[in-house]
Amino acid sequence: MKLYSYWRSTTSYRVRAALNLKGVAYDTVPVDLVGGDQRSADFLALNPSGGVPALVLEDGTVLTQSLAIIDYLDANYPDPPMLPGDAAQRARVLAAALITAMDIHPVNNLKVIGQLKARFSATPEQAQDWMCHWMAEGFAALEQQLDPDTEFAFGDTPGMADLCTTAQVYNARRWGLDLTPYPHIRRVEAACLAHPAIAAAHPDRQPDAPPT
Amino acid sequence: MKLYSYWRSTTSYRVRAALNLKGVAYDTVPVDLVGGDQRSADFLALNPSGGVPALVLEDGTVLTQSLAIIDYLDANYPDPPMLPGDAAQRARVLAAALITAMDIHPVNNLKVIGQLKARFSATPEQAQDWMCHWMAEGFAALEQQLDPDTEFAFGDTPGMADLCTTAQVYNARRWGLDLTPYPHIRRVEAACLAHPAIAAAHPDRQPDAPPT
Repeated sequence: MKLYSYWRSTTSYRVRAALNLKGVAYDTVPVDLVGGDQRSADFLALNPSGGVPALVLEDGTVLTQSLAIIDYLDANYPDPPMLPGDAAQRARVLAAALITAMDIHPVNNLKVIGQLKARFSATPEQAQDWMCHWMAEGFAALEQQLDPDTEFAFGDTPGMADLCTTAQVYNARRWGLDLTPYPHIRRVEAACLAHPAIAAAHPDRQPDAPPT
Repeated sequence: MKLYSYWRSTTSYRVRAALNLKGVAYDTVPVDLVGGDQRSADFLALNPSGGVPALVLEDGTVLTQSLAIIDYLDANYPDPPMLPGDAAQRARVLAAALITAMDIHPVNNLKVIGQLKARFSATPEQAQDWMCHWMAEGFAALEQQLDPDTEFAFGDTPGMADLCTTAQVYNARRWGLDLTPYPHIRRVEAACLAHPAIAAAHPDRQPDAPPT
């Protein structure tokens, strides 16, 4: 498999972590979002949405949208599961993942920030305030929905909510959000970063990350 | 079951259509998003994210996030399925649904438009341009991913991609997006609106819609 990925993309981070947790081997193909690789004709032929991640299977099938890719991996490589089997518990974990995936990430996307700058002359400080606003609002809701007494978000093994949360916390730290009000979210991040499969998916450990 | 819903909310529209397709009875509890009902203490106790839809099951369990609710309904009321059984086809349908659910809707949410006005003094025209920009970009990608020769998005029965698409087209018409470039998207909407279960979920037919 080939994973089209950008080191700092939190949606790529989610999928890298799921692949690693399931022990699925893949080659990383870096897509430089800041340089505009995602708008090249070649990449748009692969993914008309012009985003990462995109996973190309052995038979050439192209999968897009991080949560659809994780759902596919769960069907084909069920161990460990990214969502629980019980329907009500599954809905709970999925809803927690979607707080990040719907309510935070899309509004803070690189292309959204680009439009804020182009249309409203947003300054770097205004862009940062914008991002932190949505992260603070989403994290406040997420904090109340995580299990209070488990190691990971909803149990003792990582799943979809853990991956979405940890990737978003990476971004929150990058943009200076105060994480003090979110002890459960910080607990989830710490548990994930201590897990070798998730740690290996961290942005700084990707082939396209700049040398430190 | 009780569905907390707002007539014009496209995420509520998706869930209403799924409930109707599956023949699941529910009572609608209107939440006036324009009036700010979603920020009341009572509603935040129900859904800390302060959004609709929220589905309260018979045993009092509260489900949030439209796609998590539809996923739950699919597990408990499998007929008709909102996603196909084959994993690769399922990933394709889910990715198409997520173009709307991730790349369009969250960026055009009422609260995002509110922040554009509050932070950047966006005019009504600028807000409309913003919404149409994301719809045009998302629809251009979606148009290429729908099946070209089926009645609904990916076959002859409606599923998750149909519901997300049709609800978003309602919003696109409301804001005056030119739909000429998207014949397959228009075909999906026409097929859905001709289906009684989906037609009954249309905003104009909800108890909280203003009298026409």
